Amino acid sequence: MQDIAHLLPFILNPHNIASYENGIVLIGNRRKYPLEKSFVRCKDVESVAQAIETMVTQGAGPWQAAACGLALAGREADGMESTAAWAHMQQAQQRLVATRPTNTALARRLELAMAAAQKVIVGEKEGSLETAVLNWLQSYREKIYADYAARGRYGASLINDGDGILTMCFAEAAFILALGMAHEAGKRIHVYVPETRPYLQGAKLTAPSIHELGIPVTLIGDNMGAALMAQGKIQKYFTAADLITLDGHVVNKVGTFQHAIAANYHRIPYFAFAWGFDPHRPTHSSIEIEERDPNEIKQFRGQATTDPTIDAYYPAFDITPPHLVAGIITRQGVVSPYDLQRLVKPES
Amino acid sequence: MQDIAHLLPFILNPHNIASYENGIVLIGNRRKYPLEKSFVRCKDVESVAQAIETMVTQGAGPWQAAACGLALAGREADGMESTAAWAHMQQAQQRLVATRPTNTALARRLELAMAAAQKVIVGEKEGSLETAVLNWLQSYREKIYADYAARGRYGASLINDGDGILTMCFAEAAFILALGMAHEAGKRIHVYVPETRPYLQGAKLTAPSIHELGIPVTLIGDNMGAALMAQGKIQKYFTAADLITLDGHVVNKVGTFQHAIAANYHRIPYFAFAWGFDPHRPTHSSIEIEERDPNEIKQFRGQATTDPTIDAYYPAFDITPPHLVAGIITRQGVVSPYDLQRLVKPES
Repeated sequence: MQDIAHLLPFILNPHNIASYENGIVLIGNRRKYPLEKSFVRCKDVESVAQAIETMVTQGAGPWQAAACGLALAGREADGMESTAAWAHMQQAQQRLVATRPTNTALARRLELAMAAAQKVIVGEKEGSLETAVLNWLQSYREKIYADYAARGRYGASLINDGDGILTMCFAEAAFILALGMAHEAGKRIHVYVPETRPYLQGAKLTAPSIHELGIPVTLIGDNMGAALMAQGKIQKYFTAADLITLDGHVVNKVGTFQHAIAANYHRIPYFAFAWGFDPHRPTHSSIEIEERDPNEIKQFRGQATTDPTIDAYYPAFDITPPHLVAGIITRQGVVSPYDLQRLVKPES
Repeated sequence: MQDIAHLLPFILNPHNIASYENGIVLIGNRRKYPLEKSFVRCKDVESVAQAIETMVTQGAGPWQAAACGLALAGREADGMESTAAWAHMQQAQQRLVATRPTNTALARRLELAMAAAQKVIVGEKEGSLETAVLNWLQSYREKIYADYAARGRYGASLINDGDGILTMCFAEAAFILALGMAHEAGKRIHVYVPETRPYLQGAKLTAPSIHELGIPVTLIGDNMGAALMAQGKIQKYFTAADLITLDGHVVNKVGTFQHAIAANYHRIPYFAFAWGFDPHRPTHSSIEIEERDPNEIKQFRGQATTDPTIDAYYPAFDITPPHLVAGIITRQGVVSPYDLQRLVKPES
């Protein structure tokens, strides 16, 4: 991770997301960011769990904070006999998994951390439970950030000197790394970030992250992308993807599709970063779009913006069909959205 | 105006926009709407001017409030000898015009009101200055609302039973009347209104106005229009226009163009309501898009949404080319955007 650490802004640097030292877990406080870069300090598993539940950390944060919480439980268990120690670990695991019941990645990764700890319990490995969990966390992070870096390099290769780049929502580390790598290679770029109502991930996370890397960035409204394209300000459009179906449909934060249509109209290529492909989602017809609380549309940080008796609608995601997608950025390169079946391997 | 009064919601009913009785001007308070339907009560010209300056009224409101203010000045002048009376009127006119120095319609209409008052001064007409101004205001309103109604009828004729309708920003009386007339004719319609950041005209004005008429309306984010089209929820797209050039380009609130591209992609017709055509704007190449305070994009009612050192950009309008426009709704009917030159007559 050393080679890319300087390209990771505050919010994506694993050390700021969640760190552990001598029984203390520090969690980067996304609720205060970007107006403040601060941490929540936790001395026990319950505090870590509550920090996750109250949205102190989000996105790629919860599993890392939970793993630090498990290391803390390991430290407490290290003095106990093995049956009690294992029971203590399992109790911590349950509490931490319960913080985000629908986040299957968090649960799956804590299973892996527990498997590493179990090797100490059964005598397969030397050392403490605390160290076993922390070593697992470090190696797992290395693997994940290597993946980010690989996709970042492919993304950077698509960016030309002088490009104006549009994005949507918060496209996480692969996109930010792509920008950082292009910038470091001397390419002059300018990134335009829609604020992304109602949660404002663009204003709160994306624009400050890019700004922190010293890359020129401009915040715009969600209704301005096409106007900027018509002005010749945009040459590339990049987003992340919450899900990509095997038939090449990109499911991402609502607004992604509207910009993809506008990009296509202006002959601007659209690229989506893929984490992986879900073999259980062969076609877009199987997608159900999550509808979130419509009250979010009728207020801003709790302030009503309209008559509260009016209906609202908040589909969280939209679906961009493959003919609007110029390429999917994967660990294997930038591939056609029509050739994803070939890349699928069984879930690990 | 009698025949359409019941189709005008609070904010578009001239009696609520600004009314005058016995030396009191009541101005509908848009700053409180829609959370409250209240009025600002003014007993002198200076209070009326300050209400206009502090945005108590907007859109079609300032000229009507100013005319009521001029009637108030007329009441004060009615006891004076004619030279002093006229000087008093002129002083009031100047103060009222100065409230919105770039609003040429306000200045032009107060000129017309003054011309009506002058007939009393020179003895061409009987009665008081107060009454002369009020009679002028009433007849001018009648003419304007007859225009709204004519375009409303053309708009209503484009709406079919079962239509889902998308709009953008606040398309004023012609659009709201079109919806009211279609609804009254028994057509079942559902209107989707983007909130329209940063000023939220959709949330604050459009959605409550439609709701007040008992027409089903749903508030959405500015990033959701295309997603709703893909879901089959939208059959027509209507907006107002701040300016239509003679070569058929529609200049309107930023976001209009992005939705027009998405509508075209989904084979949904887009219609723009035109007030008139500016013979001084023959082509779109002569348009300069106003850039507004970028701080509006970085905050919400004064609350920062991002790091304040980040750049932002706020083009107030965008330009939709004629090939994305199915028709322009004018006083003469729904015309092709390629046939506007024929409709132009010298400015009145």
